[in-house]
Amino acid sequence: MVGLGLIGSSIGLGLRARGYEVSGEDADAARAARAAEVGAVDELSPAPTEGIAFVATPASAVVRTVRRLLRDSSALAVTDVAGVKAAIAAELDEPAFVPGHPMAGSEQEGPDGADPDLFVGATWVLTPTPSTSERTFASVRGAVSALGAEVVALPPDRHDELVAVVSHVPHLTAATLMSLAAQSPVDREALMRLAAGGFRDMTRIAAGSAAIWPDICRDNAAAIVPVLDQLIARLGEVRSIVAGQDRERLVALLEGARAARRNLPARGARPPEWVELRVVVPDRPGVLAEVTSIAGSLGVNIYDIEIAHSSEGARGVLVLVVATEPASRLVAELRTSGFVVAAASADGTAVLA
Amino acid sequence: MVGLGLIGSSIGLGLRARGYEVSGEDADAARAARAAEVGAVDELSPAPTEGIAFVATPASAVVRTVRRLLRDSSALAVTDVAGVKAAIAAELDEPAFVPGHPMAGSEQEGPDGADPDLFVGATWVLTPTPSTSERTFASVRGAVSALGAEVVALPPDRHDELVAVVSHVPHLTAATLMSLAAQSPVDREALMRLAAGGFRDMTRIAAGSAAIWPDICRDNAAAIVPVLDQLIARLGEVRSIVAGQDRERLVALLEGARAARRNLPARGARPPEWVELRVVVPDRPGVLAEVTSIAGSLGVNIYDIEIAHSSEGARGVLVLVVATEPASRLVAELRTSGFVVAAASADGTAVLA
Repeated sequence: MVGLGLIGSSIGLGLRARGYEVSGEDADAARAARAAEVGAVDELSPAPTEGIAFVATPASAVVRTVRRLLRDSSALAVTDVAGVKAAIAAELDEPAFVPGHPMAGSEQEGPDGADPDLFVGATWVLTPTPSTSERTFASVRGAVSALGAEVVALPPDRHDELVAVVSHVPHLTAATLMSLAAQSPVDREALMRLAAGGFRDMTRIAAGSAAIWPDICRDNAAAIVPVLDQLIARLGEVRSIVAGQDRERLVALLEGARAARRNLPARGARPPEWVELRVVVPDRPGVLAEVTSIAGSLGVNIYDIEIAHSSEGARGVLVLVVATEPASRLVAELRTSGFVVAAASADGTAVLA
Repeated sequence: MVGLGLIGSSIGLGLRARGYEVSGEDADAARAARAAEVGAVDELSPAPTEGIAFVATPASAVVRTVRRLLRDSSALAVTDVAGVKAAIAAELDEPAFVPGHPMAGSEQEGPDGADPDLFVGATWVLTPTPSTSERTFASVRGAVSALGAEVVALPPDRHDELVAVVSHVPHLTAATLMSLAAQSPVDREALMRLAAGGFRDMTRIAAGSAAIWPDICRDNAAAIVPVLDQLIARLGEVRSIVAGQDRERLVALLEGARAARRNLPARGARPPEWVELRVVVPDRPGVLAEVTSIAGSLGVNIYDIEIAHSSEGARGVLVLVVATEPASRLVAELRTSGFVVAAASADGTAVLA
C-alpha cells in the first residue's frame, strides 16, 4: 500500500479484515502513523517486493510511484486508484501493472475516515493496458473482489469517456446551474426562496469539496470537452424545441429521459419481483424512523431507498423498493398509520391502488 | 374552489381544518364526488358568489374560469394556482383577481393524494396585476397564510423569470443529461453501472411525470429561452476553461458554486447558531432510523436532513443540521455507536473534530 489516505487506509483495513497481510507507507509521516493506529496496516514499511501493491497516492504521483515499485521488484502486481486512466495507461504499459478506479468515495478524508467496507457493492473499474499480464489482472481482481467490489473491465480511454458522461460533465453542469442562479440579475433573495427540492437535488454535488476537480479536468480534458460540446448542442436543440413550441419533440425528450432514469440499475441487489412505493413525507426526521420501523416490524426488507423532494415545495417523497409479495401488507400498514402511499411496478404502472 | 384535483382538494381540506366553510365544483363529476368523500369540501355546488375563489383547474382553463367567476359576482376575491403567471396576469388585469402560484406539489394525483398540510412551510407566490385591489390581495393572502404557507409577492414577469432559473431550465437540463447518457454511443451498460450518486441526484427529477412540462414550456417560453441561452453560454465558458487548462478560473467557478449552494436558505427554520453534521451511512434504511433515534433519545432537534450520495459509490452521507449547543453530545454518541461523523459550522469550517 503506497498512500494511506482515505482510499488507501480503507483498502488496508478491508484486506486485513479479510485475512490479507498488509504493509504500507505514506510520504506524510503523521498520516502514516495515524493509519497504523487505526489498523489500516500490519506494519509501516517501504513498498513490498511481492504480492499486490495498491498505489493510492494523489493522481499526480501515480506514474513515478508505479515506476519505482516496478523497478524495485519483478514479483509484484501493481494497480492504482486514480480517477482518470488513459494517460496513466499510456505511460505505464507494463505486464505487472493494471490501472484501476474504485467508484467509491466518502465525504471524509484521511485514515480517520477509513472504512473496511467502503467498497462493498461498489463498481471497481480495471483498465488493462496492451501489456498487462493475465497474472497481474487476476491477482488484482482477486483482491478487489475480496473487498466486496464488482469488477468492470474496460479499455482506459473508454473508462475516461464514460466517467466524463456520468460524473465529470454532470458535476460541471451542477456548478454552472448554481452559479447561474446565484449571479442572476433578478431578485436574488426571492430566487433562493423559490429554489425547491428539484433544484436542491440537481445542485447538491456542487456543495462538495472542489479540491479534486482541477486535477480531474486537467487529466480528462480530452474526454470532457467533447461531452460538453454534445451537451451544449443538445441544450441548443431543447432551446429550439421550446422556442418553436414543438410539443411532440419535447414530450419525446422528457418521456425518453424518464424511462432511462427509471431503468438506472439499482445500487443494491433487487429481488426478482419488486415494486416501488412512494410515501409522501414532510421534511422532518422522525418520519423516516417511523416508516422504516413499520417495514422492520412487518419483516419487510427494503432493497433501496431514496428521498426525492418534490419538484416544488417543502415536502419529500420517500421512494422504497420492496419485494412484490409483502408489499401490500406494508402499504396497508403505512396507510393505517396515516401515510399517503402510491405503488408502481418496475415498468412504472400503478399497482396496489 | 373550482377544480378538485390534488391542489384544489388540499386547499379545501386545509381551509376546512382551519375553520373555513368550503364549497367546490369540478368538471369531472367522479373527481368531484371523490373530493366530497375525502372531505375536501363542505358541499358540492357551483362557484360561490362571495368570499374567496381558488381556481385550481389545469392552466389552460384558468382564464375562462376566472372570467366566468368575475362575471357572475362582484363580491369575490379570485386567485389561481398555475405555474406560469405573466400571460394570465396580462389577460386578467382585474381588481378582484390576484394570480398565485403555490410552490408545493406531490407525487400523488387527484383528491386521494390531498393533504390539509400540503402548504405548511411552502412558499406561495402572489403576483398582483396593476389593477389588483388591496382588498383582493389581503383576502387571498389571509387564506394562504392560514394554510401555513409563506407569501412572497412578486411582479408576474419576475416570477416567471425566477422559476425559469430555479425550476424549468434545471428540469430540462436533467432530462438532457439523462438522454445524453442513455444515447451515448459508447458501452451503454457499463455506463449505467458507472452512474453513481451524483448522477442519480442530478437526474432524479427527470424520473417524474412529464405531463405538466409541455404546458409549462409553452406558457413560459419567453423566460425559459433566454435562461437556456445563458446556460449554453456559460457551459461554453466552462468548455474553454477545461480545454485551456485555466485552473484559476475553474477553481473560482467551483468555489463560487459551492459557497452559493451552501447558502441556499433552509426549508425549515434554523436556530441562530447551528452546525452541519455529515454522517457516513451505507445505503440501507435501518441506519436512518438508528441515527434519528439517537438524536431523539438525546433530545436533539434536527432542523434539516438530506441524504447526499457521495459523488461515486454505493454509500451515502446523511447531512443533519442541529443547534450548536447540543451538537457535541450527538457527535459523541454517534461515534460511540460506530458512525464516522464530521461537523462543520455555517461557513464550512470543520468543528468538533
